[in-house]
Order: sequence, then structure tokens, then C-alpha cells
Amino acid sequence: MMIVMKLDATDEQIQHVVDRLAAVGAQGHVSRGEFVTIIGAIGDRDQISGLNFDAMAGVDKVMPILKPYKLASRETHPEDTVVRVGECGLGGSLFALIAGPCSVESEDQYLRAARQAKAAGASMLRGGAFKPRTSPYSFQGLGEDGLKIMAAAREETGLPIVTELMDPRDVETVLKYADVIQIGTRNMQNFQLLSEVGKVERPVLLKRGMSATIEELLMAAEYILKEGNADVILCERGIRTFEPSTRFTLDLAAIPVIKKQSHLPVVVDPSHATGKRDLVLPLSLASVAVGADGLIVETHPDPESALCDGSQSLPVDEFMAYATEVRRYVEMAGKHIS
Amino acid sequence: MMIVMKLDATDEQIQHVVDRLAAVGAQGHVSRGEFVTIIGAIGDRDQISGLNFDAMAGVDKVMPILKPYKLASRETHPEDTVVRVGECGLGGSLFALIAGPCSVESEDQYLRAARQAKAAGASMLRGGAFKPRTSPYSFQGLGEDGLKIMAAAREETGLPIVTELMDPRDVETVLKYADVIQIGTRNMQNFQLLSEVGKVERPVLLKRGMSATIEELLMAAEYILKEGNADVILCERGIRTFEPSTRFTLDLAAIPVIKKQSHLPVVVDPSHATGKRDLVLPLSLASVAVGADGLIVETHPDPESALCDGSQSLPVDEFMAYATEVRRYVEMAGKHIS
Amino acid sequence: MMIVMKLDATDEQIQHVVDRLAAVGAQGHVSRGEFVTIIGAIGDRDQISGLNFDAMAGVDKVMPILKPYKLASRETHPEDTVVRVGECGLGGSLFALIAGPCSVESEDQYLRAARQAKAAGASMLRGGAFKPRTSPYSFQGLGEDGLKIMAAAREETGLPIVTELMDPRDVETVLKYADVIQIGTRNMQNFQLLSEVGKVERPVLLKRGMSATIEELLMAAEYILKEGNADVILCERGIRTFEPSTRFTLDLAAIPVIKKQSHLPVVVDPSHATGKRDLVLPLSLASVAVGADGLIVETHPDPESALCDGSQSLPVDEFMAYATEVRRYVEMAGKHIS
Amino acid sequence: MMIVMKLDATDEQIQHVVDRLAAVGAQGHVSRGEFVTIIGAIGDRDQISGLNFDAMAGVDKVMPILKPYKLASRETHPEDTVVRVGECGLGGSLFALIAGPCSVESEDQYLRAARQAKAAGASMLRGGAFKPRTSPYSFQGLGEDGLKIMAAAREETGLPIVTELMDPRDVETVLKYADVIQIGTRNMQNFQLLSEVGKVERPVLLKRGMSATIEELLMAAEYILKEGNADVILCERGIRTFEPSTRFTLDLAAIPVIKKQSHLPVVVDPSHATGKRDLVLPLSLASVAVGADGLIVETHPDPESALCDGSQSLPVDEFMAYATEVRRYVEMAGKHIS
Repeated sequence: MMIVMKLDATDEQIQHVVDRLAAVGAQGHVSRGEFVTIIGAIGDRDQISGLNFDAMAGVDKVMPILKPYKLASRETHPEDTVVRVGECGLGGSLFALIAGPCSVESEDQYLRAARQAKAAGASMLRGGAFKPRTSPYSFQGLGEDGLKIMAAAREETGLPIVTELMDPRDVETVLKYADVIQIGTRNMQNFQLLSEVGKVERPVLLKRGMSATIEELLMAAEYILKEGNADVILCERGIRTFEPSTRFTLDLAAIPVIKKQSHLPVVVDPSHATGKRDLVLPLSLASVAVGADGLIVETHPDPESALCDGSQSLPVDEFMAYATEVRRYVEMAGKHIS
Repeated sequence: MMIVMKLDATDEQIQHVVDRLAAVGAQGHVSRGEFVTIIGAIGDRDQISGLNFDAMAGVDKVMPILKPYKLASRETHPEDTVVRVGECGLGGSLFALIAGPCSVESEDQYLRAARQAKAAGASMLRGGAFKPRTSPYSFQGLGEDGLKIMAAAREETGLPIVTELMDPRDVETVLKYADVIQIGTRNMQNFQLLSEVGKVERPVLLKRGMSATIEELLMAAEYILKEGNADVILCERGIRTFEPSTRFTLDLAAIPVIKKQSHLPVVVDPSHATGKRDLVLPLSLASVAVGADGLIVETHPDPESALCDGSQSLPVDEFMAYATEVRRYVEMAGKHIS
Repeated sequence: MMIVMKLDATDEQIQHVVDRLAAVGAQGHVSRGEFVTIIGAIGDRDQISGLNFDAMAGVDKVMPILKPYKLASRETHPEDTVVRVGECGLGGSLFALIAGPCSVESEDQYLRAARQAKAAGASMLRGGAFKPRTSPYSFQGLGEDGLKIMAAAREETGLPIVTELMDPRDVETVLKYADVIQIGTRNMQNFQLLSEVGKVERPVLLKRGMSATIEELLMAAEYILKEGNADVILCERGIRTFEPSTRFTLDLAAIPVIKKQSHLPVVVDPSHATGKRDLVLPLSLASVAVGADGLIVETHPDPESALCDGSQSLPVDEFMAYATEVRRYVEMAGKHIS
Repeated sequence: MMIVMKLDATDEQIQHVVDRLAAVGAQGHVSRGEFVTIIGAIGDRDQISGLNFDAMAGVDKVMPILKPYKLASRETHPEDTVVRVGECGLGGSLFALIAGPCSVESEDQYLRAARQAKAAGASMLRGGAFKPRTSPYSFQGLGEDGLKIMAAAREETGLPIVTELMDPRDVETVLKYADVIQIGTRNMQNFQLLSEVGKVERPVLLKRGMSATIEELLMAAEYILKEGNADVILCERGIRTFEPSTRFTLDLAAIPVIKKQSHLPVVVDPSHATGKRDLVLPLSLASVAVGADGLIVETHPDPESALCDGSQSLPVDEFMAYATEVRRYVEMAGKHIS
């Protein structure tokens, strides 16, 4: 950590910073420039970060040097983490294509989508039983009945299922059914929920908050990792910007940025990012090309009658062609859909 | 709701939209322009909004006309809501000045801040016992012990206390102590939590999500109101933008915009918005001038040793001068600190 | 255009809107819903857009239905425009790889970069002689001397040159040398400059403003097209968001969105978007996969000594490998580098 | 400037940075921490900023310490600059209320607005003769004829006039009429234009770009100041964010932030920021309360027939009441309208 002093900082103020560092067993390395003095803090970083430099007199600003996450960092774990889910994998040369409806609406709807996903070679099934909806008047999901339908689809297709957990009180229920627990964008900083899924033995797919920085996403992953669960899959799903032509702006640069900072696998959700079916294929191909370890896309047997996100769902009868095109790019990137 | 058809929409596609409307007892009012055809949907809006127009063939886009919230809307409740908390009030001519540390750290720290707040004429005390922290390695709050300290401060000063609830499993604990339950910016769309606080008889201070639109804030309030709790206080606390010189960009236009759309009182948090102590006073005065019903500000007896947000906390010995200046503007606005 | 009236709009106010429409020879199609009345304006859109509905009493909001651009629109020009520059082309199956230093610094520097670009199979050379710099104390470019160096590089390599025009007073000078005139991100809404380049017979590469919507970009193109110059190439180069890990956030969804709305070719600038050399290759591949018609990338024989943008420039000796990888994806997309 | 080395930087790489500093007569102060090494660059800052550290091997990132502007900085000019325009002033205790139509449409329209502005005690008149319009099909202004009408209004009312310059070729024409030259938001980084107005003896009102940081605004001011023109007035007019309920998000924290960094006066434009007439008064009062040195607001004798920005213009017959309310807050802030 570097502490930049104000132009008019006094010697007493500089000494005070150094003394506070010494008090926690750290060292203050003072560097006096023509205009400003900078103090480099050297020592145990947890001790140092507990000090409140920017509230000290004479301090202009504090510049962190080290990343605030540890377990999520590639520095502490140089090799790629490969998360295994049944016979699928994410990371290294293993790519996962996760498909299915936004929400589980009925057994018929879900099984039709699941069969088509299976036929097209998808890796896993997605589907929501507990749904976060902006309006209290919108369909809120089927709850455990939805999970049972998903389990039936897994039974039939053999594909693992990914579903969202929203409430720490539902952990046990969701654990009975889910192969991968999804934490949604609105809960990326629901720290209680993160701690709970950190304590279970089940992979977690953690979506980036719609206005979270990449660093905040990695800090959220750290909450899970810290509790002992090493199987965290990150998900880029678009951030909020001023551009109105898509629901969110998909930040594909985030994938190579994350790959450099962290060992965790990253998937992309082009359906929620854009909100438009026509954009799902081109952005899926771009995601593969930029280095993603998987895709999570919405499909529906009848988008027009979908209770949620119909406009961005691929009709299941177009999914085969979609998957074929995605596979070409996955192979081009030296990976394969597992 | 207006359904705008694509330029090349066929008569069959137009008729299909009209038929779907008729099927739910609504009417489709077709308006054919030189280039495009628009269908106005007239009828029960809950029925209509359940239809998935933008997934229908030939539809270009769907434009909502009515606001999606009802109970939060000024249309259904034309007069200002005044939320009462003990002898304080928010709304109409009643203004609340809420002060105190970011987090409760010790009895000594909290009581010193509370006494100073009382002496300066504050309306209520703020303080966090359960703290949402970006890093799992940061101080997470004292939990129920913190709430007990806050209760002791209330006992001594007579001021009501505002504190954050983060987990639905903590509702009962927090209810034992809090006069106002705060829902933080990261939980604005934690819909389970919103529903829970909608079921209790205790005012709720709902902070705007850092990337939430005003409409989403009002929809979040709707979740609470729908469960029966009418005492919702909204809070503007800055939104995320590209400008790096403040932690967030305080959106003061939101206050008159909300006042026009909704009857609920609105307070401003200039401390979290800016992250800088020096900016708290000018933005507090601007908040009063723009029409806010209250302020929630961070104070600390010793900001330098604060475990959280020291750089944005007013030292308690400057709070008297701050409160005096705020009071002048409150009176100028025809209100009084209650 | 749809005019949405306020809930409490009177019949007189509704009639007033209809009368104003009639006064310009247009029709107001009144649609009365349970809560609100909407007036569809039908007639000549230039006439209608001149009316100031949202300043009329009783009007809640005005919703445009048709796109405000015409010549840039795919509706008026359904086939892809292919812009030809010497033997190169952009659009359809023709892809352009444009490479070179951010700014022309010396003959030696520029020729080394040019030769390497040629050797790797690039389509055109980029380089700045007039440089827009945030600081008045930064290197501002060599001016016409820089253009002469670029012309010498063209002479030697046979590759066309792309360079920026910033000032309407420099049009003639730049025209003496440039094969493609670049309008930079800070000048996307410099309407005088747009009109000037609309009057010349030379392709224009128009960069998206760093906070411009896609619609504004197309409106800026319209300024050029309206003056008679049909050879407009659009360029996505990143937009400004809250994410600090890249200089800008590259909006790759913009490419398929633009392709749907407009017939103009689109290239991507991954160097300025990210500001980081390591990110240039993955985002270049993603740009090809998403459907771009070209790439414009920064290369430098010695990035460390570059007077501008060294950190994002590819060293020329890595450019061969870069171009080889890009070519694989261009061919995968069914195009070829021309 | 601090150069932060990568975790795995070698001694050679560290030495190379130090050597490059030495080569320009500066010193590299090496500080080795447990994990990273940081090099503080001490010496002439223009020399140092010319070095391209982030392109050097082993460098992780470069952190500037000093502000990149000088003449605009309060460090080099501690007292507030007061800009005088005839009998008006901006800065210190002098507040300017600038009013008038968005664009000059006719002599009748402009004179009616001017008279009302004078009657209500405004300081100056605003009005556009050269208009930057997003669409090439919108009204582009009356040009020099518009300036003549403004001059006639000045003649009659005695109020100085503020008008926009968009093209360096129009400098002489605009100088014949304008008392204050306005540089619009789209031209904040039109560096040629900035240099031109830096060479004239006439105050310049420089609007913040809609996605410019405060630092970039001060750098743009530096371009003007550097050429010798010391009379620069800054203007906050809203920045682009995701919030759709206002045209832009007015960043009122920018005023105290700028005041701390710079000696230049700052005015606020609440009309363009919000795009809504109803919001102009509350945000004007907030601007005064937060410390602005002036307001620039749009008024029109008949907003409904305005050729530009009708929805955000105050009708002139409401301007008297508006000015009265603003004056109360100006006096509260210890200033007076000059």
C-alpha cells in the first residue's frame, strides 16, 4: 500500500503515519519527492489494511498495490482450476454448453427443452425454480416443484442441472436437487448467501453483479473459497451502461482480464446480457473466441408463451444449429464440449 | 402497452397479436402508419403484461405506457406519506437528521457519537451491527452485541435507532432492537428480504441499489408495500458511473423525480455517495435544497481509528457546526428537523 | 411517433395535439385506454418531428417509432455496403486488417512498422500526424511532415493509409495524402467536420464517441452520407463505463446491432478499447467471430520508446503471429483479408 | 509517479526503469516490499511523464501522483479566480444568473425572452446561433443573423451575451458579437478549438463533456489557459449514466470537487442536465447550495413552439418567480447575483 501525502503535509503528519505502521509491526518507507511525499507500507498486509490512513491528517490518498483477494488469485494458484460436474468439466481444454429455459414452467415445457439440449450435445441443463423478478407481480417460480421437474429431466437425459439459490433458508432444499448452485447477479454481494454456499460440497456458478467491477467479482468468489468450497465458476453476464440497444453491455474483455488474475473458469451468459435472441449466436461465438470456458444460454420450446425472458430465448428447434456453430469455434480454440 | 410491429410485419402477424389480446379479455387497437403498424393494448394490465409480445413473430418492440408499480405510485396515493418514528417524522414538513457511526465498534465509541448527535439536535441514530463488506477479511460487525449497544444509546439519548438487516434469518433479532430497519444498497433486489420486512410493523429505510434505476427502486418498495408495510423511506446514496473522484455519483435529480412519481419520503446519504468527509456538508445542503425529507450521515468520535468508512465520517466534534448549517437550509425550505 | 398523454390530460389538450398535427398535414390517431390516451402521429416524419409535443400541456412523453436516420439505415439500403480502398475492401466477405503506430514519430519508426505490417499481410497502414491529446503538454503529432512519412511508407509497401483529421481547416492537407480519413472518438459529434468530410470523395472511418449510443453513431454517419459521401466505415472502440481494469469497455454487441440496423461496414479497434497489449489478440478474435468487417490495431517497432500509447501497441515482431491467428478466424467466418 | 513492478519482475527490469529515469535527469527511488517493488520517480515531471514505463518489461502499472494540469490548479493559484463580464462577475461572492432561449429563432422570440430575463434580474443572456444537433435534419441555427439579434438584445437590455462557438473558422465572426464564448459539451475535447479561444481576450464558458471526468475537464481548461486566456468559466451540465428518467445525471459533487482542485469559477446548467422543465428549479437551488458560482438556464416565450429544447425551457412568464427563489438561496450562501 502506498500512502500519498498532501502537498502541505507536515513532518509530524508524515511521522504519525510511520508510527501507526510501526505499531502494527509494519514499516513505513518514506520517499520525499520535489512536491509530494509518499510512504510505502511494508509488512503484513492484513495488519496494514486495518489501518485507516485516509482518515489521518495530511494524507491525500491511499493506493493499494496488492490485490485484495488471495484464494481467487492466480498468484496463489498458478494453474487453471478445472471444475468437474459429473462427466462435464469447465476449465483447461474442457468447455461446457449449458442450456435450458429461464424458468421451469411445467414438466412438458422443461422436458421438451431438456431433450433438445441433450440431442444437440449440451453439457448441462439450466432452469430456475426460485426466480428473482423486478416486479412482485411477475411469476416467481415453481419452487421445489420446479426442482423436482429438473431432477426428472436429469433422470431422463443424464445431464447435470444448474439452478439458482436466492435465500440462505433454501440451501438444503436446493442441495437435494442441484448439481451446480447458481448465485444470480442481484445476489453477487449477498455475503451471507456466499458464505453458505462456501460451506457445501457443490460447484457454484457465480454471476457478476450488473454493476460490479471484476475485482468485486473476485472478492465475492473469495467469500465462497474462504469457507472451503474450491469449485467456483465465474459468469460474465453484461454490465449496466448508457447504451439502450441491449439490456446490458457484455464485457468480453473481462474474460481475458479474469484469466490473467485468477485461476477460476469463466462462462458467459449472452442471453441475459443482450435480451435479444438474434444476438445470442454472434456473442456466443465471440465468447468462445475470447477464451470463455463455457456458455449458459436460454432455450424454450415455445418462447412466445414463456413466463419469463421469451424474447431472448432460442427456440429449441434452432438450438441444434446453434450448438453446431458453437462447436466449430470451440474446436478452433483448441477445446471441446464436454 | 404499445406493440410496435416490424416494417415488414404481415397482416397475419398483426392479427395474431390482436387475437392473443382478445384471448385474455383485452383489446388490440390497431393503428397503421405509413411505415409501421402499432397496436395499443387496452384492458386489464396484469393480464396484458403476462403476454409475451416481444417473442411473437413480426413484433419489433414493446413499449410500456403505465408505470409497473401501483402502491408506491402517487397516482394511487396522491398525498405525501409521512413516516413517523417515535417523535420524529419524515415527509411533508418533517425532516429527519440521522447520524452516527458506520459500524458499532464498542460501547464507548458508540455512546460518544450518540451523545454528540443528541446534543446537536439529530433526529435518530444510525449504526451497523451486521455489515456487508466487499472483502471477507474486513470487520463484519459485532452482530447482536452491536444491537445491544445501540439500544443502550437509545436508552440514554431517547433517539430512535436505524440499523441494517442483511439476512432473512436475522429478522427477529433485529426487530428486538431497531426502530427503523435499513435495507442496504446491495440488497435492494434481495426480494426475499424485501418480502420479510414487508410483513413486519416497523418502518423500513430502503437504499437505492448502486446501479438501480429509479423505477427499480420503486419496484423494490412495491415488494415491501405489497406485504402490508406502508412505512417505507427511500434513500438516494449515489450511483455507479465512470467518474473516479467520488466513490459514487450522487443523483440529486432523483429526489424531485421520485417525489413526482411517488408519495414516499426520500432521504439522502451523502457520506457513502462521496466517500469524502469534505464533500458531506455541501452535498447535504444541496440535498435539502432539492427537496429531500432527511439526511443520513456518518459521524465518528475518532475517524482515524474507525473500523469502517473513516475517511467519509464527520468527526463528532464537527457535527454541531454541520447540524447548525443544515438546519438553516431545512428552515429555508419550509421544513423543520423533527 | 406516439404521444402519450398524462393520466389527467383534458379533452382540450388531446384535441390541441391533434390540431397541431393537422396543421402540418399529418394525422393524429387517438387511442383511449382505461388510464391513458395515446396519439399516434401519421404523416410526413420530418414535418412531425419539427413539432414540439413534449412542451405541450397534458403530454406525458413522446415515443419515437421510426429511426431518425435514413441514409445509414438498412431499410433504405438493404444490401451491405462494401467500401473499396485501392485493392482492399470492407464489407461482405472482404475483411481489412489495418495496422501501424498510434502516431508517426520518425521515418525510421514508421517504415519499420509499415514493412512488418506488409510482411504479415495487413491491408492498410494506420498512423496519426495530427493527434488529439488529453494534455496540452503531450506530443501533438508531426503534422504534415508525418503525412509525408506515411506517403513514403505507402510508396514502399503499396498499402493504403488511414489517418486522422481533426480540424476543418486541415481538410485539403489531409486529402493530399490520406486514402481513408479517420474521424476520432472525440470528434464523432463535431458536426462541421462531419459535413466537410461528407463533401469529399474519400472513404471515412468514423469512430464511435466514447459515450455515444449506437443511434448517435448512425446519426453522425448520416451527417456524412447526407453530403454525398457514401463510403463510411464505422468503428467500435469501446465505451466509457465504471469498470477500471480496461481503458474502455469494448461493446462487441454493437457489431451485430449495427449490422441489423445499417448497411455500413464496421471495424473494431481493440487497442484503444483496452489499453493493454495482452488483451488485443483475444478481443481481435472475438471481433472477427462477432461479425466485424475489419480490425484497426496499433503496432510499434519499439513500444517502450513510443511517444503515444506504448502500453497498448503490439511489438512489430509479434505482429506476424497475431495476423496469422486473426486470419484463421477470418476464414472461419467465411471472409478473407483483402 | 510511482512505477509498480510485477510480482516476478527481475533485478534487471528494475534497474532498467531506474536507468531510464537517470537518462532524463530524474531519480528512481526503489522500495522493495515483501511481494512487490515500487519505484518512485523524482525529478522534472514533464521529463518523467515522457517516459513510457508501462511498456517496459516487468512493469505492472504506473500510478500518477501529481495532477496533470498546472495553470488550472489551485496549487499554482490559491485564490479564487473571479471572471468579470461587463458589470457581472463569477467567483468569490459574485453569482451570475444566465438565461435565455436554447437557440435564437427570431427577433421577436429573442427580445421577449431577453426583456423578461432583464426584468427578473438576470446577469447575462444566453442563446445559440450555431447549434450542434444530433440529427442533420434538425434546425441548425441562424448563424450570424442570430448573433445580430443577440447583439440587438444586448443593446436594449444592457446584458452581456453568451453564445456557442463550434468551428475554428467562425472565431472572428463570433468575437464580433459575443461577450462570453461558450464551448459546448461535444467540443470539450476539440483541442484546436480550445487553443483558438485560448488566444483571444474574451471569457470562455467551457462545458464538461457528457462523459468527461473532472480531471479531463480541467485538462481542457488547461489548453485554454496555456494559450494565455485566464478567463475560463467551467460548467457542469450532467454526465451520461444508465438512469433513463433524466437526459443526463447532474453531478453536483463535481462543484466542491472542482473548487478544491481549481481556482476557476463553476456554473451549472440544470436545463440540459435534466431535459425537464419541472426539475430546473429544484436542481438550481441545489446548485446554489452546493457552491456554484452561477446558473445557465433555458427560457422561452413559447416553449411549445421552440425549435430546440422546448421541453426543458422555462416559460418566460415563470422566470420571475424562478429568479426570486434562486436569489433567496444565493443570499443564503453569502453571495449576490451580480
